[in-house]
Amino acid sequence: MPRPPYHVAIFRYRRNGEDAVGYGEARRDMLEMAKLQPGFLGMDSIEGEGGEGVTLSYWTDEASIRAWRAQDELGVIREKSRRGWYDHYDLQVARVERAYGWSSAEDGDGTEWDAGSP
Amino acid sequence: MPRPPYHVAIFRYRRNGEDAVGYGEARRDMLEMAKLQPGFLGMDSIEGEGGEGVTLSYWTDEASIRAWRAQDELGVIREKSRRGWYDHYDLQVARVERAYGWSSAEDGDGTEWDAGSP
Repeated sequence: MPRPPYHVAIFRYRRNGEDAVGYGEARRDMLEMAKLQPGFLGMDSIEGEGGEGVTLSYWTDEASIRAWRAQDELGVIREKSRRGWYDHYDLQVARVERAYGWSSAEDGDGTEWDAGSP
Repeated sequence: MPRPPYHVAIFRYRRNGEDAVGYGEARRDMLEMAKLQPGFLGMDSIEGEGGEGVTLSYWTDEASIRAWRAQDELGVIREKSRRGWYDHYDLQVARVERAYGWSSAEDGDGTEWDAGSP
């Protein structure tokens, strides 16, 4: 990931449990489409046992998110999503202003990092 | 949630699987502390089977996030976290600029909403 600022699209959802195969295929298609899109930095998905999940997609700027979401193919997937897979979802588009973290080490206190601010 | 802008702290992690009881207690303590903090809007946690998870906490502004993270008690929990519970984690602080979503309905196409832009 680059130094901030960059943008994140936070997609939170609850699935209805239907059509796991179709859902899985659409997820893969969406990731492949995102990878081809200018400004794409990465994607991270977590899903819990109850069908609630969050997908974070990272982008260099907000215009890249808009361009990605405006694609016709994504509109088709969105229609299918609503008819078949989700109870509800929301999307928040946000500008990342600071980022830092920590990783453990085999011995010692681990490593702290700070990607800084704009 | 209010109309944008507001702020989100995106905490991504992988747990090492140790000390589930101590970890659970610290999570509850952190949520209770956040609820008492000025500017707190809400918290949303998802954890997958492999110990990877994300916690989104929402705040009216960035100063509220800084004040929350600067508390002594949170510093104690952070030290325990590093020694006992996580393989790695990172935190991104971001300003939410747009938000919208969709909910299913028993009959019909469901409900679309748009919380607007700043």
